[in-house]
Amino acid sequence: MSNYYPLDEKEAILYLKKTGIIPDSSTPIAEEIGDGNINMVFNVFDENKSVIIKQAYPYVRCVGESWPLSIDRIRIEADALEIQTKIAGDFVPKIYYRDNTMALFIMENLSHLSLMRLGMIKMAKYPQFTDHISTFLANLSFFTSDFHMNPIRKKELVKQFINPDLCKITEDLIFTDPFYDCERNNVNPPLRSYLEKVFWKKEYLKLESAKLKYKFLTNAQCLLHGDLHTGSIFVNENETKVFDSEFAFVGPHAFDMGLLFGNILINYVSWDGKDYSEDLVKDYRDYLFYTLEDIYKQFIEKFTKNWKAESNEIMITSEEYLHYYLEHFFSDMIGFASLVMIRRMHGLAHNIDIDEIVSPEVRKDIQIKVLELAEELLMKRNKFRNDINAVIQCVKQNIY
Amino acid sequence: MSNYYPLDEKEAILYLKKTGIIPDSSTPIAEEIGDGNINMVFNVFDENKSVIIKQAYPYVRCVGESWPLSIDRIRIEADALEIQTKIAGDFVPKIYYRDNTMALFIMENLSHLSLMRLGMIKMAKYPQFTDHISTFLANLSFFTSDFHMNPIRKKELVKQFINPDLCKITEDLIFTDPFYDCERNNVNPPLRSYLEKVFWKKEYLKLESAKLKYKFLTNAQCLLHGDLHTGSIFVNENETKVFDSEFAFVGPHAFDMGLLFGNILINYVSWDGKDYSEDLVKDYRDYLFYTLEDIYKQFIEKFTKNWKAESNEIMITSEEYLHYYLEHFFSDMIGFASLVMIRRMHGLAHNIDIDEIVSPEVRKDIQIKVLELAEELLMKRNKFRNDINAVIQCVKQNIY
Repeated sequence: MSNYYPLDEKEAILYLKKTGIIPDSSTPIAEEIGDGNINMVFNVFDENKSVIIKQAYPYVRCVGESWPLSIDRIRIEADALEIQTKIAGDFVPKIYYRDNTMALFIMENLSHLSLMRLGMIKMAKYPQFTDHISTFLANLSFFTSDFHMNPIRKKELVKQFINPDLCKITEDLIFTDPFYDCERNNVNPPLRSYLEKVFWKKEYLKLESAKLKYKFLTNAQCLLHGDLHTGSIFVNENETKVFDSEFAFVGPHAFDMGLLFGNILINYVSWDGKDYSEDLVKDYRDYLFYTLEDIYKQFIEKFTKNWKAESNEIMITSEEYLHYYLEHFFSDMIGFASLVMIRRMHGLAHNIDIDEIVSPEVRKDIQIKVLELAEELLMKRNKFRNDINAVIQCVKQNIY
Repeated sequence: MSNYYPLDEKEAILYLKKTGIIPDSSTPIAEEIGDGNINMVFNVFDENKSVIIKQAYPYVRCVGESWPLSIDRIRIEADALEIQTKIAGDFVPKIYYRDNTMALFIMENLSHLSLMRLGMIKMAKYPQFTDHISTFLANLSFFTSDFHMNPIRKKELVKQFINPDLCKITEDLIFTDPFYDCERNNVNPPLRSYLEKVFWKKEYLKLESAKLKYKFLTNAQCLLHGDLHTGSIFVNENETKVFDSEFAFVGPHAFDMGLLFGNILINYVSWDGKDYSEDLVKDYRDYLFYTLEDIYKQFIEKFTKNWKAESNEIMITSEEYLHYYLEHFFSDMIGFASLVMIRRMHGLAHNIDIDEIVSPEVRKDIQIKVLELAEELLMKRNKFRNDINAVIQCVKQNIY
């Protein structure tokens, strides 16, 4: 770490000039624009060009030096981006330059796109999204799995993406803290009584979270994005770019899609707390159902196509195995989706989909609806048997 | 690898003197005594002392330079021995000295003990074995798991024991080759017709092997010995020493016990092809059943005790979770046992328990009995529900 120093706006410009990405003669402007919880993000631009520098400080940005965090996370994110670029290059930002010592990389500015979460709270629809994200999910997971990779190379991949610090965040914030009265939780005060009298008393929820946590801790199936919520995706009508891969590691296949589906379902429930006409809400909810359904349908098609054309594991090629595998995948995916719905209600980091509801009382009602839906999905997850429509019916029965 | 050189007997003596383990004035004798398939093993002794030097050559010993193999396996074996020494030190050889560059370590000579496999083909009984090996299995698996370890340290353990070359051997020889007419198989000629007409046509066996292979490839649960058959254990009435840990990696918990139980069951069946009185065979088989039963009973007690006293994973402490976990453990364990029974019949490396049966025809009959028993156990493994007696009844119904 001897040659590492944290950038500020001025240093960011000097650094960028050293790389040659902008000429010495230019007089660019730099702005720190990071609104994530963890890293520094500089937008550096002149009249001709705009690029993003992402740098890790040796601690969690939103907490400060009291929560140290390995800067190796930027090496991991850049490594993950390089692999994603090879496998699903249309759907990740272009990377121009990387520097592990400085714990930074430089990438294209995607400001012509919107953060998907911000679009979704305004009922935006993205007609290409299901096609794009299903390709991203099917390709990233298949081509980094033992189905495709040489097992010796696969084990090197596991080693390359050992990511203890960032995994620990997920282990705590998703699988642990929300299930008891943990200091780190961020509880809407009117919700506290429900948590204390009802939610935290349900030992069976802890048990199910434990099962999924153990999978997260031990199942090294394929390279994950690791934090695939709607705030990690830039979109517009024609483009989809997944970013913020610092949580990447080789983990349980179902985790990425679970996070995405959980976030979409949070948005689904959130409308019950907002002032939109019934027709608008129904229309947008149908769009969300279509999104879930179509992502899953296309994912299955694309993953199966990869499987048939590109499997190199001779023991694992039968259709029967694929069916068995995908049934377990689906059950785990719904499990992870449920847990992310829970953690976003009263864990450390919330979603604006719910938090923009101003009234704490109304917000509490919606949070309870999300928690109850998550519980139902979590407890029924082994019964859906690879059928996304059964999940949608279950959601409809609870909230429509 | 610049300072690496392969030892012969003369170099082994010179090397040992350099370490100071024997004095310069001594005139020891060195003998290469390795009868394993992979490494060189020198016994160096003078009138006062005898020690073992184990060195890796950069290829598989029994095949030659055409099958290269990373010498890093000795670093892994010595690392594993150090951990085993801390956790279950009574049951592994003492290590005196290690040298990663030379891909060797020096350990105590255990020639006062017998190789368990050689004892078992003479109906030897080891009254302390069930106690010793259950402690070894319960401690090694618990204290290197996410139940006990800090998850950040655990991930470092996974990285330390990434062992691609040796895992590949297991992936091929146990989970793959025996299920088709692979060149590497070593088929007793009279058995071939059964394999071609019956065994290799059973697609459902391939499917079950695929499920277990995928667990072996992806489930990083705890540090395994990785090759725990009865030829990796030295015993006598009072002592048990597990050696040959070069296959160590962080893998599926049930694998070690599965290998051991599979090897014991091979011995169990083997007596049908040998000339011993019915009474002697019945008595020894009862001893083998007792061995299986008591290992499992004691393992459960010791693992549960560790769990209650030493769990650090707050989500994973309920008895209900433990029950769920052990039920899956048991089913996988029987699965791995079945697969090792299969691979030892017609895969590359056999067991002397069966291979000492001189008549190829009689041997074939016994091999088929083992294959049929393995199939039954493999297909029923999810139904035994953590009940070793149910497994014993199943064995009895087939062979008694």
